[in-house]
Amino acid sequence: MTVFEAKEKLTALQRKMAAYEHAQSLLYYDGCTSAPKGSAGTRANSLSILSEESYKLYTGEETVQLLEFLDAHKDELNEKEQRIVYLLLKDIREMAKIPMDEYVAYQELLVKADDVWHTAKETSDFALFELYLQQIFDTNRKFAGYIAPEKDPYDHYLNEYEEGLSREVCDRFFDTLKARLVPLIRKVGEMPQVDTSCIKGHFIAQDQEKLAHWVMRVMCLDPAHIALSTTEHPFTTSLGSHEDVRITTHYYEENVSYSMFSVIHEGGHALYDSGSAEDMAFTALDGGISMGIHESQSRFYENILGRSKAFCGYVLPAMKALFPQMLDVTEDEFFKAINVVEPSLIRTEADEVTYCLHVLIRYEIEKRVMAGELAVHDIPAEWNRLYKEYLGIDVPDDKHGCLQDSHWSGGLIGYFPSYAIGSAYGAQFLQKMKQDLDVDALMAKGDFAPVNAWLKDKIWQYGRLYTPAQILDNVLGEPFDPNYYLDYLEEKCKAVYGF
Amino acid sequence: MTVFEAKEKLTALQRKMAAYEHAQSLLYYDGCTSAPKGSAGTRANSLSILSEESYKLYTGEETVQLLEFLDAHKDELNEKEQRIVYLLLKDIREMAKIPMDEYVAYQELLVKADDVWHTAKETSDFALFELYLQQIFDTNRKFAGYIAPEKDPYDHYLNEYEEGLSREVCDRFFDTLKARLVPLIRKVGEMPQVDTSCIKGHFIAQDQEKLAHWVMRVMCLDPAHIALSTTEHPFTTSLGSHEDVRITTHYYEENVSYSMFSVIHEGGHALYDSGSAEDMAFTALDGGISMGIHESQSRFYENILGRSKAFCGYVLPAMKALFPQMLDVTEDEFFKAINVVEPSLIRTEADEVTYCLHVLIRYEIEKRVMAGELAVHDIPAEWNRLYKEYLGIDVPDDKHGCLQDSHWSGGLIGYFPSYAIGSAYGAQFLQKMKQDLDVDALMAKGDFAPVNAWLKDKIWQYGRLYTPAQILDNVLGEPFDPNYYLDYLEEKCKAVYGF
Repeated sequence: MTVFEAKEKLTALQRKMAAYEHAQSLLYYDGCTSAPKGSAGTRANSLSILSEESYKLYTGEETVQLLEFLDAHKDELNEKEQRIVYLLLKDIREMAKIPMDEYVAYQELLVKADDVWHTAKETSDFALFELYLQQIFDTNRKFAGYIAPEKDPYDHYLNEYEEGLSREVCDRFFDTLKARLVPLIRKVGEMPQVDTSCIKGHFIAQDQEKLAHWVMRVMCLDPAHIALSTTEHPFTTSLGSHEDVRITTHYYEENVSYSMFSVIHEGGHALYDSGSAEDMAFTALDGGISMGIHESQSRFYENILGRSKAFCGYVLPAMKALFPQMLDVTEDEFFKAINVVEPSLIRTEADEVTYCLHVLIRYEIEKRVMAGELAVHDIPAEWNRLYKEYLGIDVPDDKHGCLQDSHWSGGLIGYFPSYAIGSAYGAQFLQKMKQDLDVDALMAKGDFAPVNAWLKDKIWQYGRLYTPAQILDNVLGEPFDPNYYLDYLEEKCKAVYGF
Repeated sequence: MTVFEAKEKLTALQRKMAAYEHAQSLLYYDGCTSAPKGSAGTRANSLSILSEESYKLYTGEETVQLLEFLDAHKDELNEKEQRIVYLLLKDIREMAKIPMDEYVAYQELLVKADDVWHTAKETSDFALFELYLQQIFDTNRKFAGYIAPEKDPYDHYLNEYEEGLSREVCDRFFDTLKARLVPLIRKVGEMPQVDTSCIKGHFIAQDQEKLAHWVMRVMCLDPAHIALSTTEHPFTTSLGSHEDVRITTHYYEENVSYSMFSVIHEGGHALYDSGSAEDMAFTALDGGISMGIHESQSRFYENILGRSKAFCGYVLPAMKALFPQMLDVTEDEFFKAINVVEPSLIRTEADEVTYCLHVLIRYEIEKRVMAGELAVHDIPAEWNRLYKEYLGIDVPDDKHGCLQDSHWSGGLIGYFPSYAIGSAYGAQFLQKMKQDLDVDALMAKGDFAPVNAWLKDKIWQYGRLYTPAQILDNVLGEPFDPNYYLDYLEEKCKAVYGF
């Protein structure tokens, strides 16, 4: 085999990998969007078979030989090809360490766990879900042992979702946050309450959908490649390549801001996912590099841009056109209402300031369960204790407590910290962006194109070519520092609460 | 290998086949329902790869050996197992005769052709589509030559969609129809026109969607297993097994009956698809046996039940609740409006009486193109000539002419006749059903359950276990006779036009 032939084979291999990923992601997406309830068994059959086929494709001798051959001829590969070989070999070597039957059994477990979690959440019945969650934690611990026996299992997963992350880094990061956030939240608590009545009431879902489509256009989401759909929990997924990205939202008719900000959030993910360089389609470089960088984009759009005073002035007139009950709302009232700081139960509905404490609670629980210091059975009690301690609130039931998120039923242990760290990246990006762009002036006229171009130039186009650390270095040219984020949050609180 | 082991392997093989079919059908379904426009290239990549993998699975040595082993031990198999082995071997032997690269190239051609057909139809530009259609006819002719070199190619495809069908059978069938339908249509044309204004106007899509869901419940479509969605052209597909069936419709706001009857039509397909015996899931027996039997169900529900005088009395009050502009419409006005007989351009919107002539035109064109007697280039002219001859109308453009149906771009040559033959089966089923059930009395109270049970008992539960001929024999106990259908149509015309 010549290197040229091997490169051709690599192209074909990646196209095949993309096809299997496409089918599996689509089965998942369909399960959340259009599928009738009684079809879960059929979907589970197909997912388990396709994941087995995928596994065979990735870990098959032919694939391993090809990649090892190319790795041995690294000098004849360009930067992108080298990175592809590195990323695939890393994945494959990790997968190969997990016995196929255990891998397939785990995929099946996740399908069932997701189903049970839905019922458990609905009925607020943690006991129903407990054994599944136990198995998920156990399997993750076991798999981490297969893949990186020298490493702490939780460190392994933190590093999987965000290269470079570990308990040590997270502990330091969250300590810095806690030190300034807890007094900030206390201070806000002493100020007069903000009136949020202007975004509450009755807002017909169909009109909220119109607003969602309007916002997507304002953000310059290309409708030829990004589609919107409705699900219980908003998410973003790309299907087969960056040419096909789906975002979802959920309309709550009593609240006009939830779906709008979830669309802006998922829109940020979608811009990043669909912004990979064109020639990255059907390669391992397509898409986002890490969860932290992903959340840095989604939360940048949702909060830093979407909840800015400047953007309020642009979005409010459009909302008034759709919802005449808002005709008398002032820009200032609206700005304050969408930036109210208030300890609450649900992470996805939390304000910017308390948000990271929600994440911290999940991080502490995961860390201790993975270390064997906390039993899965005791998660609800510990969850409720931490909400009382950090946020000062009582959790009425597990539906509004430890059953609220889909991450654990989806096997995403170690994912949560990337939400907080990504939020903090975003604030530092903003400082840098402001050196090139008058962000406030742009937001005041709803002009997202220059912002998108800036991020595409510095982040999106590179797909998975660079590590998170390289991306940060490219964009910032200085070390990551969460104090930018804390400064930003303090400034926001001052603007809303006037202290 | 013992027979017991071989049976276990057969079960696993069929589950894998079902998974690949699931993925491919879902990619198609998603392309019609949710996918953004610019994602066709990505979908084409995934479909072509998955169809290649499917092909390898079907025609691979392991599969062939397994099935031939089981075939050689037929005596040790039960009826269902024997039929599974027969059906799979038939498929596989046919597929194996088509070289894999040609098979995959054809799948890719169909994806592209579908895309081009959409544009060609929109712009009424047959020239754009012509070369694709040429390739589709050529490839079908060539594939038929590989599979059944001893047979006429068009006979081969007729028999594929409806076992037992041939040009000879079709010619006889359509001659019988023509002989009674042409004078009947002429006679109707001489009667005073029926007023259809009561179903025209403006009917908000969202309210039509409510009606659709109401109708689905009335028909006893199980929402746990059958879901509704919106597409350009209505269709039904099952995904992975009979546990997951999707129907689609299209809402035209100027017409209240189109989407309602398309839902009833697709609902009939869905009942049949989801009615296979439970243990048929993930086997070759799952689903419907043929297109003719399928259409006999869908058109039975749509026309024989849905457009019956008795059902009008049940459905009209619900429509009045949703559409107050219909409050003064009488049952008689409504019955006549939905049963108007009028030569028209679009097959899917044609009335029951002229419908079969639309099908006949397609049949004649296909037959002659396949025989090399008509050039693809000349299809539009011939189409228009036949519409003038049989239906007395002028076709203004190809959008309303030979580009209207998606069948040819989908490669479904030989499919059309099953619509007409299925309609005729249905009328004969009705006569039989009336010996057991008071169909009119049931329809008058919207009670579909006994009708569904009758059809499930006689047809649906058998999935693909019996041939169409066996099904007909089971249900009818006498030979198929299209005169039942012609009698039914004459009676309908008398009721509507009063001659």
